[in-house]
Amino acid sequence: MAELTDPLALQRYLHDRIVQSQSMGVAVAEVSPERVVLTAPLAPNINVHGTVFGGSASSLAMLAAWSLLYTLLKTHEIPAELVIHSSHVEFRAPIKGEFRAVAQAPDAQTWSSFEHMLSRKGRARIKVAVDVEFEGITAARLEGTFVAVSNA
Amino acid sequence: MAELTDPLALQRYLHDRIVQSQSMGVAVAEVSPERVVLTAPLAPNINVHGTVFGGSASSLAMLAAWSLLYTLLKTHEIPAELVIHSSHVEFRAPIKGEFRAVAQAPDAQTWSSFEHMLSRKGRARIKVAVDVEFEGITAARLEGTFVAVSNA
Repeated sequence: MAELTDPLALQRYLHDRIVQSQSMGVAVAEVSPERVVLTAPLAPNINVHGTVFGGSASSLAMLAAWSLLYTLLKTHEIPAELVIHSSHVEFRAPIKGEFRAVAQAPDAQTWSSFEHMLSRKGRARIKVAVDVEFEGITAARLEGTFVAVSNA
Repeated sequence: MAELTDPLALQRYLHDRIVQSQSMGVAVAEVSPERVVLTAPLAPNINVHGTVFGGSASSLAMLAAWSLLYTLLKTHEIPAELVIHSSHVEFRAPIKGEFRAVAQAPDAQTWSSFEHMLSRKGRARIKVAVDVEFEGITAARLEGTFVAVSNA
């Protein structure tokens, strides 16, 4: 299970399989079933104002949410495919340099309802909240809803 | 004003000023104050399922919404900066090839309230809806809220 908490293993996987993570310069700072932290530099994500493009902030947050759920499913040895269902992002402040997305695991109750539904119906939804941080403040916040489909 | 409806002029501007539009392979198919249509290929936007990454679908839709408002402001000769405030995206179907984002202009009433507020307060919000299409179906739909700040 060591590989599941190896930031470089996740980073390689993202770069190989989700091409935009590479062109955005995404790095994995932290990965565990509790929390995933991804970072990205300004340069490949810059917009007309010299700040981070909203699409890049959203994408980094989605990648963090997806990576967290992926890690949780692997940790619990649940074979399932994850697909994004919807996302809501609030952009609160301009991001003027390297930024990071912090995805926190859902609480135990939410996870156990999700796991129960997935094993019973072969399909379940779950929400993940992600903070996009710049210089210690929450510059954007994503709420993503994902659907897991059992492929056992 | 010819440049405002020149797809290549907008494409060059996006590629130069919003780096992700270039790495996503964004092309401008159509631009007018009524409608902006952007396209992107699958390869640079692929995910672990071999379909388009949700972040790329969102980003293309945001770029289309932003481009439409940018074109509308220029057409009406309103000097203002545009910033995204929030976005909501529903992902309805997997995208397995080249995809496009179609941003439709807000109705005349919405535009005129926005223009009035912007000239009175120097700041106004506006919503734009964008369909992300693949093979003729709406595979995703974005509703983006933007804030314009007058810089006259």
